[in-house]
Amino acid sequence: MKVAIVGGVAGGASVAARLRRLDEKAEIVLLERGPHVSFANCGLPYYIGGVIRDRNRLLLHTPGSLHAVFNLDVRVDSEAIQIDRSAKSVTVRNVNTGEQYQESYDKLVLSPGAAPLVPPVPGRDLPGVFSLRSLPDTDAIKAFIDERKPGRAVVIGGRFIGIELAENLHRTGIQVTIVEMMDQVLLPLDYELAAMVHQHLQSRHVQLALSDGLQAIELRDGGGLKIVLQSGRSIDAEMAILAVGVRPESRLAQDAGLALGIRGAIATNEHLQTSDPDIYAIGDAAQVTHLVTGGPTHVPLAGPANKQGRLVADHIAGRAVRYRGVQGTSIVQVFDLAVATTGLNRKQLEQAGMSYQSAIVHAAHHAGYYPGASSMTIKLLFGPEGQILGAQIVGAAGVDKRIDVLATALRAGLTVFDLEELELAYAPPYGSARGPVNLIGFVASNTLRGDLKVITWDQVAALDRSRDFILDVRDPEELVAGSIEGAVNIPLRQVRSRMGEIPKDRRIVVYCAVGQRAYYACRILAQHGYDVVDLTGGYTTYSQAVGPRSDSSG
Amino acid sequence: MKVAIVGGVAGGASVAARLRRLDEKAEIVLLERGPHVSFANCGLPYYIGGVIRDRNRLLLHTPGSLHAVFNLDVRVDSEAIQIDRSAKSVTVRNVNTGEQYQESYDKLVLSPGAAPLVPPVPGRDLPGVFSLRSLPDTDAIKAFIDERKPGRAVVIGGRFIGIELAENLHRTGIQVTIVEMMDQVLLPLDYELAAMVHQHLQSRHVQLALSDGLQAIELRDGGGLKIVLQSGRSIDAEMAILAVGVRPESRLAQDAGLALGIRGAIATNEHLQTSDPDIYAIGDAAQVTHLVTGGPTHVPLAGPANKQGRLVADHIAGRAVRYRGVQGTSIVQVFDLAVATTGLNRKQLEQAGMSYQSAIVHAAHHAGYYPGASSMTIKLLFGPEGQILGAQIVGAAGVDKRIDVLATALRAGLTVFDLEELELAYAPPYGSARGPVNLIGFVASNTLRGDLKVITWDQVAALDRSRDFILDVRDPEELVAGSIEGAVNIPLRQVRSRMGEIPKDRRIVVYCAVGQRAYYACRILAQHGYDVVDLTGGYTTYSQAVGPRSDSSG
Repeated sequence: MKVAIVGGVAGGASVAARLRRLDEKAEIVLLERGPHVSFANCGLPYYIGGVIRDRNRLLLHTPGSLHAVFNLDVRVDSEAIQIDRSAKSVTVRNVNTGEQYQESYDKLVLSPGAAPLVPPVPGRDLPGVFSLRSLPDTDAIKAFIDERKPGRAVVIGGRFIGIELAENLHRTGIQVTIVEMMDQVLLPLDYELAAMVHQHLQSRHVQLALSDGLQAIELRDGGGLKIVLQSGRSIDAEMAILAVGVRPESRLAQDAGLALGIRGAIATNEHLQTSDPDIYAIGDAAQVTHLVTGGPTHVPLAGPANKQGRLVADHIAGRAVRYRGVQGTSIVQVFDLAVATTGLNRKQLEQAGMSYQSAIVHAAHHAGYYPGASSMTIKLLFGPEGQILGAQIVGAAGVDKRIDVLATALRAGLTVFDLEELELAYAPPYGSARGPVNLIGFVASNTLRGDLKVITWDQVAALDRSRDFILDVRDPEELVAGSIEGAVNIPLRQVRSRMGEIPKDRRIVVYCAVGQRAYYACRILAQHGYDVVDLTGGYTTYSQAVGPRSDSSG
Repeated sequence: MKVAIVGGVAGGASVAARLRRLDEKAEIVLLERGPHVSFANCGLPYYIGGVIRDRNRLLLHTPGSLHAVFNLDVRVDSEAIQIDRSAKSVTVRNVNTGEQYQESYDKLVLSPGAAPLVPPVPGRDLPGVFSLRSLPDTDAIKAFIDERKPGRAVVIGGRFIGIELAENLHRTGIQVTIVEMMDQVLLPLDYELAAMVHQHLQSRHVQLALSDGLQAIELRDGGGLKIVLQSGRSIDAEMAILAVGVRPESRLAQDAGLALGIRGAIATNEHLQTSDPDIYAIGDAAQVTHLVTGGPTHVPLAGPANKQGRLVADHIAGRAVRYRGVQGTSIVQVFDLAVATTGLNRKQLEQAGMSYQSAIVHAAHHAGYYPGASSMTIKLLFGPEGQILGAQIVGAAGVDKRIDVLATALRAGLTVFDLEELELAYAPPYGSARGPVNLIGFVASNTLRGDLKVITWDQVAALDRSRDFILDVRDPEELVAGSIEGAVNIPLRQVRSRMGEIPKDRRIVVYCAVGQRAYYACRILAQHGYDVVDLTGGYTTYSQAVGPRSDSSG
């Protein structure tokens, strides 16, 4: 058995190492176009920011260590440029010498990754304009910063990598502007949670230019760059990083006649085989099945790439394995916030035509009476039977824990009713007797059982105020934080005694700061015959979402 | 509908608040023997230690706030002393005035909690000897510390509360000794993980007297206490806290002829009804079903008490609900460590007669190349089909996250094979592409698939060295940390080339520092026909467990 693997980073290295454990005799050739295998690509922004100081830490393995431990034939600077499927061989080019040769295979694994998309704008090749994928890219950015000491940078694209780059450039003292075509950063988030990120970025003096795109990059007289946006606005900076997305590296597959899927990713079946069963595709180049929709998707993330690599090795070794789909669990640090998602968001659910409801809670990351509790916001999207379809969390602490619990629950097929019952670890420094995941389960279950009707911030913003009665059940001293226009304030504790002030012939929209007291008020009023709805996420979410638009750099 | 609730802390307060949300008209009477309702009992040790500075923060609700928000009839200092089941009434005694009266009920909920066990030894009532359950107990301990400034304290009992007390007493500058009858603290842990806790306590100069019990407490000439142990040894101290366990408060139930279960807890059915269907029991006083064994258990924890309260309210309100069982998820802070468990440990599985295997991994809490990664130890116990039966984790960071994921997986009925595939959130500050939960899934699955045979530290300690060949695959420079007696060192990278030095006619027991390289070596050797087993947890676990016994205060 001879297995050739194209690409030696996350997925490819995983295939090779796992396959060796299963088959001591297989011939395993790992072909990597770049100079490094198995490097920590998720660490590159942090090396630029100086958080990771030792460059060697990014090199998880060397060709030598992979050979010594796993008896692999590792070839760096070796690009696979053509596949001859009938002959079952790959043409390999030494990128240094240009020399070419044929390498035969019994099974071929394509794990070439994805390349940064470079918008076809004038000036994209100017000095000081970068994109980030490899260690050499990283070295170039770091050298530019060290030598030229740029004072200002523009990051084009507010996705994960753009946000991580912005934070790390900021860490080196550079003033950063993020330019994003959409009206929000971090597209896996729904708008109201992205608004929290916008506010946090602005609090750290990172400028945002939202709903705007890159038009051109020009050299300024006297040095530096002028970043011209589609709105006509321009931003002066000494450097720019293009981080608008990635393109699956599927040319090799396409040239070989393999089927491609969405975004040009290489189509695969449940065993991660391409349209040629002797050729597998994994990682950022591959189209796989989405766990929630059951349809095809392209999710370029390191965790799934690793797991796919392991699975392909198992399948090559003759084991009965099946890829059950990717769910897109992800997390990103944004200064003092963690932002995490799993499953689908509102836009994706609507695109997939899936019926859903949503709920938002704000909850302390551990017992409120123990010092240091900080609030996180959880949005849960769920189906009519309580199926967990997606979750989004933004907060300062404990976010990673809750997204992992929800990701596990989603994968296990648990419902929101199960979330109510989850028995999670509680001691004051770590959680609450009813933690954030239980709470979001309560709210979602309440809505499905008919105990609570919820309304979302955008529905409230669009209300006809003459039709609905807006009831604010916060205490009077909280009103200084602002109110929804036209709301009448009756504190929760007075709702029973002042019920006569609440009209019976109108729908009552109830809110408080975060949602708990509004829920209590809803239960009182509903039992007294009122038609009542609860603003999910309370005034906190409403004000964050409808607040001043987040474009701060105009 | 009139509902009387005996006990106004975690479970009882939950019943009352939830029931009001479901039934605005029910008459709800909350009877609490003590002066406080709904206080933060899990926070009491931290108030003693000064971590929680404001005593008011411990009072989550007052009778007034419960009345204002939930329209509850809350009566503190009111002890239920007798139940007349035929008349459906409770005799209530005002603990201040001695006055008694009858209170009728349609449904009665017993949530009286559990009382600290007080060993029947001489001197247990001496000044300076305390136990901790209520806020008045806490006030007494804190006043004693503030006024008498004790230099030394003895905590009798190494359970959760004892450990939390030890840490918090230590925080106030008191030198603490923990006395524990068993050979380890924190009984939910298996010994090798408890050994890590012993070492950490000792590193913080908390003394341990294990395998020893309290014989008597005596007054010393000149003041202070002499704590006399069953071994004959005695410890001088200025204060002692008895924390050897709790006894369900079931006398009221027993006097009323309700069935009791294990440890005298009140027996309940799947609706948490006692043997009288109009009377429910929840929380620390109740016997409930264990999620893993399906048999009866008594697990005094705040999280389950809250959830049970909610469920009983639902059932009283006529909803079809069923308690699916407690799994005993718990966590405790021990200075810089977090210690967490869920499900059953080795001893409990053996008592239940359940077939199991176990695996141990040591894993970094986030990507190793990102600064600040710290190691945690996870032990997983699993059944022959891969069922998750229990998990234990000890580490400095990220422990709470992993136990919550494993607790969720256990409740969902996931197997160790599912743990391999869990798609959890990865970015360098938060996790790894293959995080600790994936890793323990890999090891457990490998053993069930027959890819790896594991041997435990205690089996290795008991080996007949003349029969087995012990192979240490660490690098030579690691051997200064110690070795297993009789082991032969062949570093992993040399295993293929030096295979001739490894005998084919003996079983090979392989170990490295934590287990990964030993696994690789096992795979190489197994494929070359060797009978090979892997020491799970590696030399790290072995040396912690067989190291010097943990009694440090002799």
